[in-house]
Amino acid sequence: MSHYRRIRQILKEQPLGQAVEIKGWIRTRRDSKGFSFLEVNDGSCVANIQVIAEENLPRYQEDILRLTTGCSVRISGQLAASPAKGQDVELKAAEVEVYGWADPETYPLQKKRHSFEFLREIGHLRPRTNSLGAVARVRSALSFAVHRFFQEQGFQYIHTPIITTSDCEGAGEMFTVTTLDLNNVPRKEGRTDFSEDFFGRQASLTVSGQLEAEIYCLALGNVYTFGPTFRAENSNTSRHLAEFWMVEPEMAFCDLAQDMEVAESFIKYLVQYVLEHCPEEIELFNNFVDKGLKGRLAAVLEQDFARITYTEAIERLTTCGKKFNFPVSWGADLQSEHERYLCEEVFKRPLIVSDYPKAIKPFYMRVNDDDTTVAAMDILVPGIGEIIGGSQREERYDQLLGRLEEQGLSREDYGWYLDLRRYGTAPHAGFGLGFERLIQFVSGMANIREVIPFPRTPGSASL
Amino acid sequence: MSHYRRIRQILKEQPLGQAVEIKGWIRTRRDSKGFSFLEVNDGSCVANIQVIAEENLPRYQEDILRLTTGCSVRISGQLAASPAKGQDVELKAAEVEVYGWADPETYPLQKKRHSFEFLREIGHLRPRTNSLGAVARVRSALSFAVHRFFQEQGFQYIHTPIITTSDCEGAGEMFTVTTLDLNNVPRKEGRTDFSEDFFGRQASLTVSGQLEAEIYCLALGNVYTFGPTFRAENSNTSRHLAEFWMVEPEMAFCDLAQDMEVAESFIKYLVQYVLEHCPEEIELFNNFVDKGLKGRLAAVLEQDFARITYTEAIERLTTCGKKFNFPVSWGADLQSEHERYLCEEVFKRPLIVSDYPKAIKPFYMRVNDDDTTVAAMDILVPGIGEIIGGSQREERYDQLLGRLEEQGLSREDYGWYLDLRRYGTAPHAGFGLGFERLIQFVSGMANIREVIPFPRTPGSASL
Repeated sequence: MSHYRRIRQILKEQPLGQAVEIKGWIRTRRDSKGFSFLEVNDGSCVANIQVIAEENLPRYQEDILRLTTGCSVRISGQLAASPAKGQDVELKAAEVEVYGWADPETYPLQKKRHSFEFLREIGHLRPRTNSLGAVARVRSALSFAVHRFFQEQGFQYIHTPIITTSDCEGAGEMFTVTTLDLNNVPRKEGRTDFSEDFFGRQASLTVSGQLEAEIYCLALGNVYTFGPTFRAENSNTSRHLAEFWMVEPEMAFCDLAQDMEVAESFIKYLVQYVLEHCPEEIELFNNFVDKGLKGRLAAVLEQDFARITYTEAIERLTTCGKKFNFPVSWGADLQSEHERYLCEEVFKRPLIVSDYPKAIKPFYMRVNDDDTTVAAMDILVPGIGEIIGGSQREERYDQLLGRLEEQGLSREDYGWYLDLRRYGTAPHAGFGLGFERLIQFVSGMANIREVIPFPRTPGSASL
Repeated sequence: MSHYRRIRQILKEQPLGQAVEIKGWIRTRRDSKGFSFLEVNDGSCVANIQVIAEENLPRYQEDILRLTTGCSVRISGQLAASPAKGQDVELKAAEVEVYGWADPETYPLQKKRHSFEFLREIGHLRPRTNSLGAVARVRSALSFAVHRFFQEQGFQYIHTPIITTSDCEGAGEMFTVTTLDLNNVPRKEGRTDFSEDFFGRQASLTVSGQLEAEIYCLALGNVYTFGPTFRAENSNTSRHLAEFWMVEPEMAFCDLAQDMEVAESFIKYLVQYVLEHCPEEIELFNNFVDKGLKGRLAAVLEQDFARITYTEAIERLTTCGKKFNFPVSWGADLQSEHERYLCEEVFKRPLIVSDYPKAIKPFYMRVNDDDTTVAAMDILVPGIGEIIGGSQREERYDQLLGRLEEQGLSREDYGWYLDLRRYGTAPHAGFGLGFERLIQFVSGMANIREVIPFPRTPGSASL
């Protein structure tokens, strides 16, 4: 009978005196007179388990003394209290079986700190490090927390399409999806003949599931999406990816004030969840990645988010006496430096800015009674900037049509979207959370390439 | 103060005598002497709530008597026990506000049954029907169940890439992802110059996250993916989509027998979950879509899945005396008719077929000691056929390299995959569940286009 358990469980339950079996990878080996210490990690938690392997074990010379970082092993033995500092328990090995070696001459991951840049070059090995392994567990925990938050409140999860023939206006450049032979593109009247393509027309990767989520919102009430979205933008920065994950709730019978409330409680729920479920990972990030992390996360939970309108923001920025690189004036979009000043220096906590000029916002946002602003909101968090953008949607047919025309968009292309306003329209609102920005916020990771398993950026899509 | 509640909650809690407010869409209006019956649905459940609107209500003539299918409303009033058959409670309206009309002359959804083919043409309205709304709720519930099953057992959810430059061999034709101007494709030495493309090389949409999941499996132990995958195949059938969702767990220190156990308990968990959480939806499908549904789902839970090897399957098929369209012989792949005969006529329950000939399976499956079969398994379910395919993976470097070469694949392309076997390799196994096939199985929906919100098929990708 197998006594195999994950190391996380053993360290938590500490079944002293019992037979246990572990399966994992050697982190380090240290030899002493008559025995060796093995540190073993199985990816279930940050911590290693310490194993004592005595020299009278079978194949001690042949196998155990050859173990190096990265070897995979099965070890059975008895769990004992550890006399030494640094751990509560240790495993006294009765049997050590080696599944796979890791030649220390060539294995790139050795017992030392590697730069994140270096680790990006070995994307197939980097999750074996403490920090990237911790990011992966936090990402998994927070993904589940996203679903829990919405499912507990009766939201339906909707898989909006990845390949799309509609365009969420203004969101950004799109990738083309095609099966045409690029060596021999069919042409008609001098242009690409997309009628020959797989879908019979030009298709792209989605930039947002919002418009399609509205379809389900106006059928089921409260819905959310959580899926990959894409931008074909040539931004090689630490804040942008060509492929990233977004969470987009959409709520029927909901206005901007309620939208902001849901968004604030959502962020708080996620931060609370990660503090409860990943305390070791947060400790590791706080120690090795960002010393201010725990304080910043605690502050999110302690206070209400600050709230100001765009107009108030402009007033604050123009009267504060601070010099900005980008000019501040009513009607211009807020730049990152403005957002960070307001969030980090003025309010020192998450900040919701609402009611932006309609001229700088997409057609689907609901026009306010002043006819110059829209019922939009952005949530800014310290260290990251914008993490959520949302709005009440224009539910009035005539106003929506007017906005489409103002922005030069075709009524035919958006016929289905207009239909949602022709038939049983209702006030509704929603927002989008950039999931990688969230992971950066809770991990302190400076570069967005570290918080997604396989980053896609201009010129780079390995694996 | 608002007494707004979802209809699901009101029907469940039945707060008799209390003030309640609902927001939803009219399904039907029926007028009687001095009052009207309104059936209102808000998408939270299959059932409507019955509203009694008396003629002395404000705007009874102007608004209430104009209400038709699809109008959106807010109704407040008092909940009362219903004297009539068909419902326990009814809402006595005190106030009816209309948010949005739905002109019955043009609104395509009227009080009658529409064919699924017709509904597909109005993809932006079809979730408002009972059956497609129920599918959406079941899909959402089962998505969450997928996450719950794995998270409860300590699996980490991994977002494998959608845009990929590697190819999961043999899985199928791929879509190209590009930002090249198709009207003017750059060329070099007579062929497309992908060095000018966004990623500096040719990129595609993923056909499977398995190979990348193995990276995380061999770092974190147990992982799973749940995301969209793509096939650019010209199959216009009721079983195929160009874009569909897959669940792919991958487990370290796991062999084929354990893989089958996890897969069986996974299917049972999902069926149990949907029966518990969506009983009304299952009832609706059983009544209107597939009369045998409930019996088939109950049978899944009652018995162990049958298990035979491929070799035994071939013996059964060649000795059963039945005529098949496709010939049966050892070495040929099982066809749908063979699978369905075994599953539906011989075993009459879910069936796991294992140990297929290595010649018809991909390079990454572990070769058995007989050197002619691989440690692969498919799970077949009645009415659907294959719903899961999995295998133990080849963890031995030399054998894997041999299989790559046998299949004419380049050692360089799979260098990273071989590395996983060079450094700390370990036995591991996994499987893939076609999520739409699962939804078909639990809903009885005959066409796969009904179980995904926005189906993508050859020639069709609307919205």
